[in-house]
Amino acid sequence: MVWNTNLRWRLPVTCLLLEVALVVLFCIFVRYDPDADAHWMDEKLAGNISSDLENEFYYRYPSFQDVHVMIFVGFGFLMTFLQRYGYSGVGFNFLLAAFGIQWALLLQGWLHCYREGYILIGVENLINADFCVGSVCVAFGALLGKVSPIQLLIMTLFQVTLFSGNEFILLSLLEVKDAGGSMTIHTFGAYFGLTVSWILYRPNLHHSKQPQSPVYHSDLFAMIGTLFLWIYWPSFNSAVSSHGDAQHRAAINTYCSLAACVLTSVALSSALHKKGKLDMVHIQNATLAGGVAVGTAAEMMLMPYGSLIVGFSSGIISTLGFVYLKPFLESQLRIQDTCGIHNLHGIPGIIGGITGAVTAAFANSAVYGEEGLIQAFGLRSKLDSSMQAKLQAAGLFISLAMALVGGIIVGLILKLPFWGQAPDQSCFDDAIYWEVPEHERTALRPEHTTLRPPEP
Amino acid sequence: MVWNTNLRWRLPVTCLLLEVALVVLFCIFVRYDPDADAHWMDEKLAGNISSDLENEFYYRYPSFQDVHVMIFVGFGFLMTFLQRYGYSGVGFNFLLAAFGIQWALLLQGWLHCYREGYILIGVENLINADFCVGSVCVAFGALLGKVSPIQLLIMTLFQVTLFSGNEFILLSLLEVKDAGGSMTIHTFGAYFGLTVSWILYRPNLHHSKQPQSPVYHSDLFAMIGTLFLWIYWPSFNSAVSSHGDAQHRAAINTYCSLAACVLTSVALSSALHKKGKLDMVHIQNATLAGGVAVGTAAEMMLMPYGSLIVGFSSGIISTLGFVYLKPFLESQLRIQDTCGIHNLHGIPGIIGGITGAVTAAFANSAVYGEEGLIQAFGLRSKLDSSMQAKLQAAGLFISLAMALVGGIIVGLILKLPFWGQAPDQSCFDDAIYWEVPEHERTALRPEHTTLRPPEP
Amino acid sequence: MVWNTNLRWRLPVTCLLLEVALVVLFCIFVRYDPDADAHWMDEKLAGNISSDLENEFYYRYPSFQDVHVMIFVGFGFLMTFLQRYGYSGVGFNFLLAAFGIQWALLLQGWLHCYREGYILIGVENLINADFCVGSVCVAFGALLGKVSPIQLLIMTLFQVTLFSGNEFILLSLLEVKDAGGSMTIHTFGAYFGLTVSWILYRPNLHHSKQPQSPVYHSDLFAMIGTLFLWIYWPSFNSAVSSHGDAQHRAAINTYCSLAACVLTSVALSSALHKKGKLDMVHIQNATLAGGVAVGTAAEMMLMPYGSLIVGFSSGIISTLGFVYLKPFLESQLRIQDTCGIHNLHGIPGIIGGITGAVTAAFANSAVYGEEGLIQAFGLRSKLDSSMQAKLQAAGLFISLAMALVGGIIVGLILKLPFWGQAPDQSCFDDAIYWEVPEHERTALRPEHTTLRPPEP
Repeated sequence: MVWNTNLRWRLPVTCLLLEVALVVLFCIFVRYDPDADAHWMDEKLAGNISSDLENEFYYRYPSFQDVHVMIFVGFGFLMTFLQRYGYSGVGFNFLLAAFGIQWALLLQGWLHCYREGYILIGVENLINADFCVGSVCVAFGALLGKVSPIQLLIMTLFQVTLFSGNEFILLSLLEVKDAGGSMTIHTFGAYFGLTVSWILYRPNLHHSKQPQSPVYHSDLFAMIGTLFLWIYWPSFNSAVSSHGDAQHRAAINTYCSLAACVLTSVALSSALHKKGKLDMVHIQNATLAGGVAVGTAAEMMLMPYGSLIVGFSSGIISTLGFVYLKPFLESQLRIQDTCGIHNLHGIPGIIGGITGAVTAAFANSAVYGEEGLIQAFGLRSKLDSSMQAKLQAAGLFISLAMALVGGIIVGLILKLPFWGQAPDQSCFDDAIYWEVPEHERTALRPEHTTLRPPEP
Repeated sequence: MVWNTNLRWRLPVTCLLLEVALVVLFCIFVRYDPDADAHWMDEKLAGNISSDLENEFYYRYPSFQDVHVMIFVGFGFLMTFLQRYGYSGVGFNFLLAAFGIQWALLLQGWLHCYREGYILIGVENLINADFCVGSVCVAFGALLGKVSPIQLLIMTLFQVTLFSGNEFILLSLLEVKDAGGSMTIHTFGAYFGLTVSWILYRPNLHHSKQPQSPVYHSDLFAMIGTLFLWIYWPSFNSAVSSHGDAQHRAAINTYCSLAACVLTSVALSSALHKKGKLDMVHIQNATLAGGVAVGTAAEMMLMPYGSLIVGFSSGIISTLGFVYLKPFLESQLRIQDTCGIHNLHGIPGIIGGITGAVTAAFANSAVYGEEGLIQAFGLRSKLDSSMQAKLQAAGLFISLAMALVGGIIVGLILKLPFWGQAPDQSCFDDAIYWEVPEHERTALRPEHTTLRPPEP
Repeated sequence: MVWNTNLRWRLPVTCLLLEVALVVLFCIFVRYDPDADAHWMDEKLAGNISSDLENEFYYRYPSFQDVHVMIFVGFGFLMTFLQRYGYSGVGFNFLLAAFGIQWALLLQGWLHCYREGYILIGVENLINADFCVGSVCVAFGALLGKVSPIQLLIMTLFQVTLFSGNEFILLSLLEVKDAGGSMTIHTFGAYFGLTVSWILYRPNLHHSKQPQSPVYHSDLFAMIGTLFLWIYWPSFNSAVSSHGDAQHRAAINTYCSLAACVLTSVALSSALHKKGKLDMVHIQNATLAGGVAVGTAAEMMLMPYGSLIVGFSSGIISTLGFVYLKPFLESQLRIQDTCGIHNLHGIPGIIGGITGAVTAAFANSAVYGEEGLIQAFGLRSKLDSSMQAKLQAAGLFISLAMALVGGIIVGLILKLPFWGQAPDQSCFDDAIYWEVPEHERTALRPEHTTLRPPEP
C-alpha cells in the first residue's frame, strides 16, 4: 500500500481546528488566578498580605522557567540524535508540546481549579501543564521517526486527557504524593508510549537501519538536551512541592541522585562494551534515570544517602536495560522503542513509585516532626503511614493500567491509514515532512556519497 | 570598486575608543542604586524594610537572567542559520550587544535615573539595557551578512541613542504602557533595520545566493536560538512590570500567546508548501511572533483567550509574510531582509501596539478593580481609558516615525565606503572577517566539493 | 611502550568504588540543613520567621541553577571545540563534575558545616560544591585530550581535597573575601592544572596536530559553552554573597566587567592578526576573562567604572596571552595547555586577587557606611582595611603555592602508567574511549578523506 504523506490540507486543518477549539474553550472557561488578576491589590488587603513577594509568582516562577527549558530544549534536543531526523525531533516536540500545554491547562483546570464556572490559572498551572506535556514527550520518544505530526497531535489530545484523569485519581482521590511525577509522568508516559509503539509495530524497519544511527554532530546536539534535562531536574522535582523545606529538600535529593547516577551509568557503559568503550546512548539517557527514579520521594525525608542509593541503582538498571532489554523488547515483544524510553522513564519510573511507597511507609514524627509530618502527608499520615504506602503502591498500578489500556485504544486510532504516516522505508527521514536543503538530501548518508574514503 | 575589508586597525581602534569613552563616562556618572549600594543597611532602617528579600534584586534577577539568555544565546544562535556565517552571526551579535548594554546603561540612565549628578544603576537598569540592545539585535537581523562589525558598532551607537529617545517620549512623556516592548523594541528595531537595509541595498547579492541558504546542521543551531527565545519570552514581557499580579499576568499571557502561535505557524507553513512540507524558516521565526505581538498588552487584563487570539493571528500573519511579503519587499521595494525581521518583529510589533491600544481602551474598574486600575495605568486611566488608548496609538506612530527617519540618517552614515564592508560577492561568508579552519574554507559548499554524489 | 587504553574493568571499578564510598560516607555524615529538613516548621516558630520565603532556598536557588548550567553546559561545551574530541570534552566534564560535587559536599561540609557529628546540607552547599568542581573543570582544560577518564577521576579526588583545604585556609582562617573565587577557584584551578600538565608533558604531540584544530561546527558548539558562561557569570560571582546589596552589587559589577571585556578581546584579536581577522579562540575564551578577574572584588564597592576597567584590562591581557604566552609556555616551559586556561583563568585570576586586595585596601566607612563596612568585611575591617588587603594578598600566594605543590604531587600520581592514558599519536581522539559512529571515524579528517576538493 502506498501511503499519502502529503500533509498539505490535513495538518493545517488539524492545527487550526484544534486551536480554534482551544480559543473558544479558553474564552468560556479560563480566567486569571487571584495572584495574577488585577484585583491582587484587594486580595492583599483582604488576606493581610504585607508584601508582593508573597505572590505565588515569586515562589515558583524560576522553577517554572527551568521546567519550561526541559520540555522544549531538553526533550527537543535529546531527540536530535538521529542523523536525518533532527528537524522532526526538535520541531515535532515543539508542536506537540505547544498544543499539549494549552489542552492541559483546560483539563487540569477543570479537575483541579474549577471555581464558580471558571478555571483560574496561575504559575502553578503553567508548571503542571508543562509536566503533563512531559509525559507526552516521553511517549514521543518511543515513536520518534515512525509517526506523522498529525498522529502526534491526535496522540497528544488523548494522552493529555488520560494523563489528567490518572493524575486526578492519584493526587486528588487517593491523595498519593508524586511531586516529581515518577508515576504520573514517567511511568504513565513510558508505558503508554510503548503500548502505542507495540500497536504500531513496523516489521520492515531494518530497511531504514542506517538513518536510525547517529552521526558525530547529532550526538553532540543530543547532549544539549541531556545536559539541560540533567541540570534542571532538581527544579522539575521541586517545582510544585510545598513552600519552604519541601521544595528545598526535593532539589537537594534530586541533585544527589543524579550525580550518583552519572557514575554508575558510565561504569556500566564501559563494563558492557567488549573494549571498555563508552556509548553515547548511555551517557545521553541513563545518566538521567536518577532524576526519574527519585521523583516521587524527592520531597520526602529520603535523606541524601537515600538519594544516592536511588541514583546508584537506577543508573545501573537503566544502562543494563539499554544493552539487554531494548533488543529483547524489539525482537521478542515487537516493541520498537526509538529512544529507549523504557530504560530511561519506564523502569526508573517504577523504581520511583516503589521508592516513594517505601519512604512513605517509614515516615514518622521522629523524622518529620509533628508539624512536618502533617505538612508533608496531610493529617492522615499522622495516624497511618503504612496506609499512605499502600495508596502509593496502588497509584503505581493504576498508572500502569491506565497507560496500557489507554495506549491500546490510542494506538488503534493512530493505526488508521489516513494520518499521513510514512512507509517503513522512509521512516527516520526529515525529507518526508520537511523542506530539506536540496544539496544535502543525501549528503550525510555515507553509503550514498563519497564521504567514505574512496576505494583504492 | 574594490573595498578594503582588512579591519586590522579600524576595528581595534573603534572598539578601544568606544570602551575608553564608556569608562570615562561611567567614572563620572554611574553609581549603584540604593538597593545595590553598601548603604542598603541604612536604607532598610530608614524605609522600615524588614527583610533583605524586599531588595529589588529578588523581584527581578531571575527574569533578568532569562532576558540575558535571550539577547546573547537567543538572538545569537537564531542568526547561525546561514551555512557559512555562523561565526559572524553569533560573534557580531555578541560584540554589538556587549557594547550596546554599556551605552544603554548611560543613555537610559540619564533619561530615567539621573539623581543629583549620578546615574544610579540596579538590576532593573540591566534589564532595560538588555531590552534596548534587543532592538539592535532585531535590526541586525535585516543586515546579517552584509555589514562589517565596524558598521554594526556605529549602528549600535546611534540606534541605542534613538531607542532611548523614543522610549523616553513614549514611557515618560506620553506615559504609554509597553511592558514587553512591542513598540519600543520590536516595531522600532524592525523598521529601523529595514530602513537601513533599504539604504544599503546591494543589487548583486544573487552572486552569493548559495551561502544565503542554510545547511542541515546550521538549521539545528538556529533552533537553539529559537527555543531559548520562545521559552524565556514570558520573562521578557514580564521583566519590568509592576511587582505582583502584573508580572504574574504578563508571564501567563505570553505563555498562552506563544503556544497558540506555534500551531498556526505550523498550519500555515504546511498549507503554503505545494507538497505540504514544513519550512524551518517558519518554525524558527514565525513561532515567536506571538511573543512580539503580545508585548504591549501582556501586563494588561488581556485575558488568556485574548492572548490565544493574539498568538493565533500573529502566527498566521507572520508565516504569510515570510512566504509572500519578503520576496515582494526584496524585488519591488529593494529591501533585503536576511532574517525576515519584518515578519517576525515588524508586523507583529504593530499588531502588538494596536492590541495594547485596544486593550487599554476597554480597561475599566469592573475588570481591574479600583485599586488595580490605578496600579495598572496610573490615576489618569481611572478617568479616561480612551485617552490612554489614543496615547498608545500615538506611541506606535512615533516609534515608526523615529525608526524611518533615524534609519535613513544612520543608513547614509553606514553607506560611507570606509567601514570595511564586504563586496556583494563576499557577503554571507565568515572568511572575510574570521580566521576559518583552513581545510574547510570551501568544504561545506557542495558545488565546489565532492560532497555531492559523484556522477556515474 | 604500548599503553593499554582498554578501560573495561578499570573505569567501572573506579567509578563503582568511588560511588560506594560516597554512599557510605553520606549515610554516616550527611543530613539536611534546617531550611531543608521537615522540622522547618518548628524552625520557623522558634526563629519567629513569618514567611516561607525567608527559607534560604528562595535567596539562592535561581543563582544555583545558573551556576549549575555553567559547570555542566558552560565548561562542557566550551571543551567541544576540538574536531574529534567533542564526546570526551562534554562527556568527561560531565563525569568528573558529577563525582566532584558529591566529594566536595563531604569535604566542604566537614570543614564548614559540621555540627554534632553531621554535615547539614542546603542550597548554599550545592553552590559551593559546584564552585569547587569549577576549579577542576578549569584544570581539565589544560589536560583536555591527553588524559583518560580514570586519570580525571583520580585528579578530581585529589583536587577537590586540596581545593577544600585551600578554601578553608583562605575563607575561614584568614577571613579573606573571595565571592567569585578568583583565587580559590580560578587561580588555584589554573595553576594546579598547568602544573599537572607540565608533569605529564608529551613530547610527540605534533603527531596529532590536525585533531588539535577545530572544524567549523565544533567552534559553534564551543560558543554554546562560552555564551552560557558569559551570561550566567553574574550569578556565579554573586551566588554566595550576603543577602541584599552584596548579591545585587556582585551581579552588576560582573555584568559590567564582562561587557567591557568583549570589546577589548575583539580589538586585540583583530589587531594581532596580520589581516585583521578575528580568531574564534579569543572570542570563545578571552571574552570571559572579565568574569574571572572581577571575581574577588565583585561584591565590594568596586564601582561600575572599576568593573569596566577590570574587564577592559583582562580582555587585553588574556588575548595577548593566547597569542604570545601560550606558544612560549609550550615550547620553552614544556607546558601544554590545550584550552589556554593560563590566559582565561590563570592570569585573570591573579588580576582578580590583586584587584580584590586593592579594593579592600580602600574600603572605608565613607564608601560603605558604618553598618555596611561591618557587613562587608566583618568587624575587623572597621579598624583596619589595610590588614584585610594584606590578608587578601596572602590568600593569593597561598593559592598559588597550594596549586604548585599539589599539582606536582598529583601529576606524579597521574604519570603512573596504568591509568589507561592514550599514546601521543592517539591524543585528542574520541575513538580511543568512545564508540564512535563507524563510517565517521575518519570522515571529518580531510587529509584522509575526499572532503577536500579532488585534484583536477
